[in-house]
Amino acid sequence: MVRASRRRRVTRVRVSDDGGVDVDARADTVAGEEPLELRLNGRPFTVTMRTPGDDFDLAAGFLVSEGVLSSMDQIEGLRYGPGVDAEGRASYNIVEVNLAPGVALPDTSAERHVYTSSSCGICGTASIEAVTKASAFDVAGDGLRITVADLLGLPDALRAEQSLFSITGGVHAAGLFTVGSDGPRLLCLREDVGRHNAVDKVVGWALREGRVPLAGTVLQVSGRASFELVQKAHLAGIPALAAVSAPSSLAVELAEQAGITLAGFSRGRSVNLYTRTERVITD
Amino acid sequence: MVRASRRRRVTRVRVSDDGGVDVDARADTVAGEEPLELRLNGRPFTVTMRTPGDDFDLAAGFLVSEGVLSSMDQIEGLRYGPGVDAEGRASYNIVEVNLAPGVALPDTSAERHVYTSSSCGICGTASIEAVTKASAFDVAGDGLRITVADLLGLPDALRAEQSLFSITGGVHAAGLFTVGSDGPRLLCLREDVGRHNAVDKVVGWALREGRVPLAGTVLQVSGRASFELVQKAHLAGIPALAAVSAPSSLAVELAEQAGITLAGFSRGRSVNLYTRTERVITD
Repeated sequence: MVRASRRRRVTRVRVSDDGGVDVDARADTVAGEEPLELRLNGRPFTVTMRTPGDDFDLAAGFLVSEGVLSSMDQIEGLRYGPGVDAEGRASYNIVEVNLAPGVALPDTSAERHVYTSSSCGICGTASIEAVTKASAFDVAGDGLRITVADLLGLPDALRAEQSLFSITGGVHAAGLFTVGSDGPRLLCLREDVGRHNAVDKVVGWALREGRVPLAGTVLQVSGRASFELVQKAHLAGIPALAAVSAPSSLAVELAEQAGITLAGFSRGRSVNLYTRTERVITD
Repeated sequence: MVRASRRRRVTRVRVSDDGGVDVDARADTVAGEEPLELRLNGRPFTVTMRTPGDDFDLAAGFLVSEGVLSSMDQIEGLRYGPGVDAEGRASYNIVEVNLAPGVALPDTSAERHVYTSSSCGICGTASIEAVTKASAFDVAGDGLRITVADLLGLPDALRAEQSLFSITGGVHAAGLFTVGSDGPRLLCLREDVGRHNAVDKVVGWALREGRVPLAGTVLQVSGRASFELVQKAHLAGIPALAAVSAPSSLAVELAEQAGITLAGFSRGRSVNLYTRTERVITD
């Protein structure tokens, strides 16, 4: 996590009660953001802006989210590429993935190129019909049960472990929890300037640990729940997604179709349940 | 804005002081999210998830953000495509753009395909070296000046006009302000589930109004300031970007290079200035 954050000069301006203006120049810490180029079988596949750190997790999880693979057996090699920075030092901004023989390369023809703004999970799909990616896993029958008290505790549990947020005030987080008789247990937490990246890093960690599909887990995220985050959960076999903020209409629709429990506005004392509410024990 | 929001059944669970659990099922409003397919000169170009509404603004602004064009003269046609939904009704989820003769189509070869998670502004660029897009406009010399009091007032001015946020609690916003002797004036506000889309919609509105480059304006956004948002501002000729939350390291670097004033953590009484601070009047 060498460059997960950077020191930057900042001018803090504060207006006091009497209208006076206080100006204070000092060094502050901002979240690191650098491009990562992902190469697949020796060819450029994508560039994503991410917070450096856990790059192999990000690469692996990204390929799960793209529907390229669902098991670590499908990856033959995972290593940093030869990129160097302006001073000739290794930049660690290129990750090379080699797929195992027989794993189909994603279609990268012009008809499927991406160029997309907030789409992320639907990248590579220049056709509305094909927006939803098929998951290798059926989560609808997952027997997960969690008490509402445990569910409400997840955002605080996440925040308590967010080391980068505490120094920068500006990164997203995703945390994967199992639920046992003694309450939830954090399996993996990842932080990133991009909320999709944070989820991909968690999923990639799980893939590399041989834990995909992630049956019986809850994915807690720091922001909103979009279509793509629900899709990422589905592709990783996660039966429940909880967000601190609002879900979108398509997030609710996909959760309903996939049989995922979707919770939003999870804020300490209350939470909204949109789908598969019976997994949350309220009595 | 027919489908900018949707009614959804939600189960609200609340834990009371005495540990009792209150469960209340009712209809609630969530922000609309649907895929938009953008076709360029008759061929699929991208699919983005967006909140329906202002789709022509989104399409035009997206092409500015991709560096494809910088003037409305470069667009010959802008219309909805023939898509229909499952019931055979027009879906309004396809926008067709025809570029004027002589405008170069972006390279959509496999080497430039995208597949990217949080990258958005760097889509189509499978090479780290090429992450930064060249802007047609020089904003470094922009003579914008804004008092700190006016700057601090922008988030509230934005929120006051956010009609969709007020009913869903879950969309991003971007607002474009001019600064006159009588204070800031809101030129255009757009909301979207995707913060990049909200900015693209504002930029596209300006392009269609013949206002690009947006000299002398401040772009206020509801979330964080990433590299891509700074890049979008640069490509539209906007000299100042203010965010309610944190900037990333690369956002600060690009703002510095481009000569953009970057403000973060703008929260009523205080604001952090990262670059080109002299545009903010503090005395």
